[in-house]
Amino acid sequence: MAIDYRFKVRWGDTDPAMIVFFPNFYRWMDEATHEFFEAIGYPTLELMETEQVGVPLLESKCQFRTPLRFDDEVVVKTEVADLQNRIFKLSHRFYRGETFIAEGYTLRAWTSFAGETPKAVPIPDSIREKLAAHLEGVESI
Amino acid sequence: MAIDYRFKVRWGDTDPAMIVFFPNFYRWMDEATHEFFEAIGYPTLELMETEQVGVPLLESKCQFRTPLRFDDEVVVKTEVADLQNRIFKLSHRFYRGETFIAEGYTLRAWTSFAGETPKAVPIPDSIREKLAAHLEGVESI
Amino acid sequence: MAIDYRFKVRWGDTDPAMIVFFPNFYRWMDEATHEFFEAIGYPTLELMETEQVGVPLLESKCQFRTPLRFDDEVVVKTEVADLQNRIFKLSHRFYRGETFIAEGYTLRAWTSFAGETPKAVPIPDSIREKLAAHLEGVESI
Amino acid sequence: MAIDYRFKVRWGDTDPAMIVFFPNFYRWMDEATHEFFEAIGYPTLELMETEQVGVPLLESKCQFRTPLRFDDEVVVKTEVADLQNRIFKLSHRFYRGETFIAEGYTLRAWTSFAGETPKAVPIPDSIREKLAAHLEGVESI
Repeated sequence: MAIDYRFKVRWGDTDPAMIVFFPNFYRWMDEATHEFFEAIGYPTLELMETEQVGVPLLESKCQFRTPLRFDDEVVVKTEVADLQNRIFKLSHRFYRGETFIAEGYTLRAWTSFAGETPKAVPIPDSIREKLAAHLEGVESI
Repeated sequence: MAIDYRFKVRWGDTDPAMIVFFPNFYRWMDEATHEFFEAIGYPTLELMETEQVGVPLLESKCQFRTPLRFDDEVVVKTEVADLQNRIFKLSHRFYRGETFIAEGYTLRAWTSFAGETPKAVPIPDSIREKLAAHLEGVESI
Repeated sequence: MAIDYRFKVRWGDTDPAMIVFFPNFYRWMDEATHEFFEAIGYPTLELMETEQVGVPLLESKCQFRTPLRFDDEVVVKTEVADLQNRIFKLSHRFYRGETFIAEGYTLRAWTSFAGETPKAVPIPDSIREKLAAHLEGVESI
Repeated sequence: MAIDYRFKVRWGDTDPAMIVFFPNFYRWMDEATHEFFEAIGYPTLELMETEQVGVPLLESKCQFRTPLRFDDEVVVKTEVADLQNRIFKLSHRFYRGETFIAEGYTLRAWTSFAGETPKAVPIPDSIREKLAAHLEGVESI
């Protein structure tokens, strides 16, 4: 079951071709990721402050189908596309109303910043369960 | 043969984890693309103004290996990874000195903005030749 | 009477000092300006499309009192600080709850893009009336 | 005597009006400030790492005279406009060739991050001397 993040395209997000400058899609995927963790009960700010855990990027990708323009109202639907021991992949689908805009993913490592150098560590079971509930194809019962 | 684009990581490009906020990598891939076209003799500003041609994004991807930090001097090496009739793919490899930082690509459509709606059109032969000279694996003679 | 614009500080808005990178305050003043015009019944997108009118910046300023951090919920209160024939100045005050964060202004020219070169033109009376209702010190009755 | 910082306007810096989105001017003033400190022998990265000193913003302002467009080559001329015990003001003038583009300033506090809370502290004499050599109106001999 996807978690929704809603935003509006701002004037400064668009370029002389009158459409969104594409790196902004990745900024919105990042915002959607933080909202996703807040929605499942683990705000990233708390993870950082209380557990010294962060989720740096390993890889990201986006396919652009329909351009976004100034003032468009957009929803990003985020689900878990893959869930490994220390790594997880979120999928992000962008819609303007019924119109499909773009889809992408972000692949991140569960990382402890407690030691001298950042180190990938296993995703805790409590969080893994929450993530698993949002795996693609899993519907709430 | 790759075309190099050099830049410096700015304070505002980095985040509280002291590393570059990842959407900036896509911004730099876009800058490297414009520099690439200028280097082969077809500045994108001229293409837009004289031919009403632009190169909107279809897809982009990046894999992040080593974080970049404030004040890092970076070079992006751009080559042509694929060359179709109306579509081309540029690869972008990021280095800080000898250190490999990241690699990604941008897939774009040669697009005419002369009509009422933008339309993908064949890449002109003169430009195709220039692009072909920078295909991955092709060395200058 | 101020018009409110609410937003949340995003991870990418902050820098290694853990606080908002200051140019973002100007981005938010711009967003607050567009929301202001929408709230008074004149969305800037419509002004541009139907009247070919835009409101380019002449001057902007901001004083920073209290830093903003990741995940802060912020409200920007926008009022009209000055209203001339072709020029208007909006004041923007930033708050996090009761905490005063920053205040600034944006000075803009009512500008027609209908001719060959952009030209400052008088603000139409209908819009002037709406703006006057939001002059600083004017309370709704 | 001003210290120059040169940059090129990028596609993503511009908006549907074909001109630079104004918050970018503040980003460039910030970049010019870091280049200024490097030029006088005190790179801000070193100040932060060895002295735990930063220079947070108190106030900034910019007046816009001539729009910048995609691909413009710009120089920012930075001088010291005011030098107090713990506070300094840099002026920044933007030119494209001979054309005057914009001028602004940034007001900052010399701030120690060594204690529990950041605290404004006197600018060290060695650095004060270097700053004084770049006061507006002071020419190199």
